[in-house]
Amino acid sequence: MNAPTYELYYWPGIQGRGEFVRLALEDAGAPYVDVARLPAAKHGGVAAMQKLMKSHALALEPFAPPFLRSGDLVIAQVANILFYLGPRLGLAPDDEASRLGAHQLQLTITDLVAEVHDTHHPISVELYYEDQKPEALRRSQAFLAERMPKFLGYFERVLERHGGRHVLGGAMSYVDLSLFQVIAGLRYAFPHAMAAFAPRIPGLVALHDRVAERPRIAAYLASDRRIPFNEGGIFRHYPELDPAPSKRR
Amino acid sequence: MNAPTYELYYWPGIQGRGEFVRLALEDAGAPYVDVARLPAAKHGGVAAMQKLMKSHALALEPFAPPFLRSGDLVIAQVANILFYLGPRLGLAPDDEASRLGAHQLQLTITDLVAEVHDTHHPISVELYYEDQKPEALRRSQAFLAERMPKFLGYFERVLERHGGRHVLGGAMSYVDLSLFQVIAGLRYAFPHAMAAFAPRIPGLVALHDRVAERPRIAAYLASDRRIPFNEGGIFRHYPELDPAPSKRR
Repeated sequence: MNAPTYELYYWPGIQGRGEFVRLALEDAGAPYVDVARLPAAKHGGVAAMQKLMKSHALALEPFAPPFLRSGDLVIAQVANILFYLGPRLGLAPDDEASRLGAHQLQLTITDLVAEVHDTHHPISVELYYEDQKPEALRRSQAFLAERMPKFLGYFERVLERHGGRHVLGGAMSYVDLSLFQVIAGLRYAFPHAMAAFAPRIPGLVALHDRVAERPRIAAYLASDRRIPFNEGGIFRHYPELDPAPSKRR
Repeated sequence: MNAPTYELYYWPGIQGRGEFVRLALEDAGAPYVDVARLPAAKHGGVAAMQKLMKSHALALEPFAPPFLRSGDLVIAQVANILFYLGPRLGLAPDDEASRLGAHQLQLTITDLVAEVHDTHHPISVELYYEDQKPEALRRSQAFLAERMPKFLGYFERVLERHGGRHVLGGAMSYVDLSLFQVIAGLRYAFPHAMAAFAPRIPGLVALHDRVAERPRIAAYLASDRRIPFNEGGIFRHYPELDPAPSKRR
């Protein structure tokens, strides 16, 4: 086999942060294994992931999943993994200025994703959602009123300035794939708010649709490799955090 | 003049996220101007920063300060700026594996810094601290009990495995400088909690002290270029969020 087989390590059962890496690997048709989703008999499972994470043989242990093994390298942090994979998968230009620009946008997506997470966990990741519901409602209201419009308005503006088809201009990149995931996830989590906001981000909505129609992405989304959105991941649907328009204050 | 003059753009009056970049530029003795802190008569000030940020002449507008201008490049996101500057300032190795490793650690610091910010702003950056005090108390308790030990314990472990002097092993890097700032900032914000926790992170405390004694850093810290910690930045001291041991629950 000529192409390297990448090993992705992430929690099984959720899309979570690992999904941004999966989408890039899937779109490129890259050979990879999703290690923690394999059975233990095939050297997979969460135990295998945690064993590698703590291994003294690693040059640098990850702080948390996801991480990627590529040959001798083990790389953690989603944006860092995508920075590495981008040119190798044909999903980013390989000159320094373009790579830094793509990475800048991806890091801004990272910031947005952290804020989405905190809509349901504003106090502590160690507590259940049920133990921080009043705070989650306050944080979600602020997120939907201020932060989501600010982030999505920014990406819409960048997309438009670059011609409207790809956020970097030029060709499809891993940043476009991540923006697809952001739109899909926000629609799952906050369907009412996103329906109301969609007219202000026509470029991002169209980009989402174009990504979903790419042959490899369409096949992936229809496969059982695509874990459904659920209430263990980043994008969670709690109806009380996304009231219907008639019930909004 | 042979060396390029870097232009740093960040809010004047706070250390904030810009400080991680300042420390690298200062330690390297790199020529730079802190544009928003210059008077308007010298083409500085916040208005100049905001004008550049929104300029259609930029290939890619930043989402938020800080950003760095280096020749034709304008780069945003602290970790991205440091990734770019690292090898140029002699503050990171220049092989790919080492650069990715340094960046992975810096992105983990970015995550920690975001969580520190949210100890005083758990609901919304658009609200004052005074409007989210009960939530800030809950979040701070969780941060000090769970998250701070988890992050600092991780960095202590990495430092120790790499020989105890520099977090990447080998020579001083921008990641060491950022860890100095993390320790200094946490001590300012949470003096009681940090005094109690210090015995568990002897390596990081010693690293902090060694960085503070580096001649250029010592000169910088004694200068008026080092803005004092204050309650407009990331690391804020609100005594009610850091109770004395006898008052802790």
